[in-house]
This record gives sequence, structure tokens and C-alpha cells, in this order.
Amino acid sequence: MGGVFKPYPTGTIALREVGLRDGLQLTKSYPSTAAKRDWIAQEYAAGLRHFEVGSFLPPSRTPQFADVRDVIDAVNSHPQAHGVALALNERGATDALATEVQEITVVISASAAHNEANVRRSQEQSLHEIANVVRLRDESDRDPIINVGIAMAFGCSISGDVAEDDVMRLVDQCMGAGADMVGLADTVGYAGPRQIERLCKRMASRFGDAPYVMHLHDTRGLGLANASAALDAGCRVFDASLAGLGGCPFAPGATGNIVLEDLIFLAETKGFATGIDLNTVVKARAILQEEMPDEALHGAIAQSGVPRTSGWRA
Amino acid sequence: MGGVFKPYPTGTIALREVGLRDGLQLTKSYPSTAAKRDWIAQEYAAGLRHFEVGSFLPPSRTPQFADVRDVIDAVNSHPQAHGVALALNERGATDALATEVQEITVVISASAAHNEANVRRSQEQSLHEIANVVRLRDESDRDPIINVGIAMAFGCSISGDVAEDDVMRLVDQCMGAGADMVGLADTVGYAGPRQIERLCKRMASRFGDAPYVMHLHDTRGLGLANASAALDAGCRVFDASLAGLGGCPFAPGATGNIVLEDLIFLAETKGFATGIDLNTVVKARAILQEEMPDEALHGAIAQSGVPRTSGWRA
Repeated sequence: MGGVFKPYPTGTIALREVGLRDGLQLTKSYPSTAAKRDWIAQEYAAGLRHFEVGSFLPPSRTPQFADVRDVIDAVNSHPQAHGVALALNERGATDALATEVQEITVVISASAAHNEANVRRSQEQSLHEIANVVRLRDESDRDPIINVGIAMAFGCSISGDVAEDDVMRLVDQCMGAGADMVGLADTVGYAGPRQIERLCKRMASRFGDAPYVMHLHDTRGLGLANASAALDAGCRVFDASLAGLGGCPFAPGATGNIVLEDLIFLAETKGFATGIDLNTVVKARAILQEEMPDEALHGAIAQSGVPRTSGWRA
Repeated sequence: MGGVFKPYPTGTIALREVGLRDGLQLTKSYPSTAAKRDWIAQEYAAGLRHFEVGSFLPPSRTPQFADVRDVIDAVNSHPQAHGVALALNERGATDALATEVQEITVVISASAAHNEANVRRSQEQSLHEIANVVRLRDESDRDPIINVGIAMAFGCSISGDVAEDDVMRLVDQCMGAGADMVGLADTVGYAGPRQIERLCKRMASRFGDAPYVMHLHDTRGLGLANASAALDAGCRVFDASLAGLGGCPFAPGATGNIVLEDLIFLAETKGFATGIDLNTVVKARAILQEEMPDEALHGAIAQSGVPRTSGWRA
């Protein structure tokens, strides 16, 4: 891990815009490359620094990410921006390593059944893949962070319960395979605040001050309650998307990622200085309105505005 | 306070359906009396016990509450149901005391400016009114609980900040005026979890195990995060409405009361046994769909269903 700045400094909170990747994964339309560039620029001006921008997959399957290289360049045109891209296998990682992306996310599922359904591999095969991606990175002249996103970490829509011990074992196996960091994803919005709190405490005793990602979905309405619990339990890196862009493949019509704007509001009311100007982020929604007029835009702060109280930034 | 059952027993959690009152306060349409009866019956069958059913106001101003006496009777047709109605002045209280309603809510605002704007009285005059309502109750042959709802307890859309010391002073003044219990209302959805936690802790040191109400709105997206914080800080009585029925007079289009179905889900994930069958409550939304087809119905659980995990009722 090199680079001129440290992407997740201790003592700070990082709110990552994943709308350009996870958001666009399930929408029916997507913005032009120029609009993506504008989206990043406006949020960067607002103070955001972390952008998940696409996935290295065959463009025939995911045309919304065909411009991933250009969008990585767009991120890198901003001096302190940190770009993240998904690579689901060694071919994807090879492609990612040919770019200047600063972080590569590989996905494994905490549920064996979902891992099979999602990537047609056993968890063991996925762990091998992670080790191979790390090796490819080490052999390359590039040094992006390798981050493993653990899907279904709070329960699985196929197999139901996912034991917390199994999640923590998988966390250790990912780190053992050479990952630099991991994230826990509530892929289908099953988690409640207690469960979040328990796993965050285990992550804290595993990682201390080192960062890990919390990737929450609002599918069942508890997204921000869970984010609040995770903040209380020491988590400092969160994924979210502008206007809650995205969805849930297992619950048509349901909301997806937690709403970035509302997450910023939550964090500020809790006394975490995000360094982000909320109103500027809200204004960026106009890009989505224009480029994707048929997509549902979520979020309460965009509708209601910030409080008239002086103390809401606690 | 008499009656054959204690409406807020220590050690239990009470989720109160306020859609029939606060919900209908701001909607453009409202259900028939028969549909209100059905709404109460279906939620009672689901396990709900507390229903705020209307307001004693001139029917010319609020036709949606013209049937408040019938709806109180509908609540009382269920052996363990507890009915609540609003009375904004002595005339309303006199009318309420002519019914068998078990709880009368009187409102005062923690913001002097909002109190003037809302009821055209000073806070001192409103405290007098509360004392008069208590006296009317004591002189009557009825013994409903007198509950004071403190509006704008977490900030005011007119005057901005509301000091926590002032809120607690008003709580004491309400109890001094003879109220049996009070509630704190985040009328415009300004609160964050930290603020909720601080005030709940002060309420706990003021009231111990005695109940007080938390009335949260989801106007800025933090409704359930705030409910989660209040549960953690010992609050056990919550207002909510089916499908989040209601709105915000100061933010057109914004959501109002927190969504009852999602609150039940939250409480159960946190290990609080609500005694409520969530799916039965979700089914009751059909009444609103039929009777008020133009109103927006909110809520995530109704859209996505409960998790496939065995452990979501923690």
C-alpha cells in the first residue's frame, strides 16, 4: 500500500460513494461517462474522497461498467480521491491492475449456498481466487489495496442464518489469503442493530484501529439504525449511495444501499465530522434526475432539508 | 388511574398506533368509520393494544375526527385495548370526559414560538390549561390518564434550538400541573440518536420505571435510528403509524410518523418481545390502500418481508 495519501487514516470517518458501482448494478438505466465524471466532481467538491466506480466484467454483461477505466481516470484527476473497483476473478484483477485504481474489491459470500449461486464457486475456491488476486497484485508494478467484501454477513436470503463465528472465521481466512482489509455486507438488509454491534465489537478486537468496511442495505428499513449502531461500536468506514441508488435482487422494488445524504446527516448529528458539505451532495442528485429519470431516488434529507437548529452538527 | 388493566406495565414495551389521529391529521383523505373499526380490529388481533384515535376538535375544522366517539367505542369493544384521544383545551377535555376514553393527551410545545403559533397561547397559559384539564378529570366520574405531549422537544422549525434543560423544566412543570405522564415529540424530525440518548437518560433519572412516550417522526430519515437509541436508553413507549401515515406541516411531501411495521421489526431484532404479529399488521395496510388510494404508504418491511433467518427475533 503506497500512494501519496493514506486512504483511511485512523481517527477519521470515511463515507464511500458506491452508487457508481453497486447503485448502477441493478438500475435499468445509467449515466453517461461525462455525467459520472460530473457526479464524482460534485461530490469531491462536497468533500467526499472514496468512490467505488465500477466492476471489471465483460462489457457485454454489464454495459454500465464498460467505461470503468475512464471513470477511474476521473477519480484520479482529483488529488485526494480514492477509487475502488470490483474484480470478481483473476481476469478482472489483471484488467484492474492495468489501471491506476487504488483499491480492488473481491467478493466472497459468508453463505456457502449464496457463494455457489453468485459466482459458481465454493468458498474455498473463492479464497484461492483471493490469494491469486493478491499474488497478481504483488507481482505487478501496482499496489492497490486488496479489499474483500463479505456478502450475506448478517444472514442469507437463500440459506437463512449465518453464524457470527463463521463470519469471523471467514474474515480470518480472507486476511490469511493476503487481503489488506475486509468489509461486512448486509446484502439483503437482514441485520438489526444488536447483531451489528456484536460483529463490530468482534471486528474491533480483531483489527484494533485498522479499518474495515460496513456495507449496509436499507431493504428492511433499518439501514441507518444499523449504521448508528456500527458507529457506536467503532466502525469508521461505510458504503452508501447518492439517493440510495441501487436495489435488492431478491426483493424487487425494495431499496438498496443506504442513502448517502441521510448517512452524512446521521454521522454529523452523532458528532462525527465527515468534512462533507451536505447541501452540495444533495444538489448532485440533479445528475441522477436528468440522466436516469425513471429511477426512484430515495432519501429524507433531500426532501426536508437540514434542521434549523445550530446544534445538529453535534 | 383505575381500570381493569394497567396500560403500561413495567418491563414491557408499548408500541402505540397513532395513525388514526396523527396520521389522519395531515392526509387529504380518511377512512370511513367502519374502516377505522376494521383497522383497529386487525391490529388488535395482531397484538397491538394502544390506539390514538382522534382529536376533540370542532368537526367543521377536522371532519376526519367527527366520528371520534364511535372510534373510542370501537377501541373499547376489545377487552385489553387502550384508547387515547387529543384534547387541546378545556372544551375538548369536557367532551373527552363524556366518553370512555382511557387516556387524554394535551399538547404543549417546548418552543415558546411554536406554542404561540400552534395554539395561540403562551407556554404558561398552556400549563394552566393542563392543570384545568386535570381538575376537570378529577371532578368528573371518569379517570383517564392525562398525558402531556411536548412538541418540538428536539428542536423547532420556527425558533431552531430547544435547550435540553428547558425541555426537562417543562417536563417538571407538566407533572407539577398534575399530568400523569408526558411524552417527548420530535415533531419535525430534527433529532439525532445522541440527543435522544441524552434526553432519555434524563427522563430515566426523572421517572425511573414509570412510562413516558417517545413520539418520533421520520422527516429526516433518522426515525428508526432514534427509536433504536431510545430503546437502548430505556424508553419503552413509542408512537408510530401504519405505513408511516401522516406528514409534516413544515416539509410538504416529507414522511411523518415512523412506520409501525418497521418499528416492530426493529424492536424484535433488538430482543424486545412486542407480542405483535408483524405479518398481520402488514396485511392491515390493505385498508389504507382501499380507503385512501391517493395517500403514499411508506415502510420497508411491507415491501421486502421479514428475513429468512431464525434469529431476527433476537
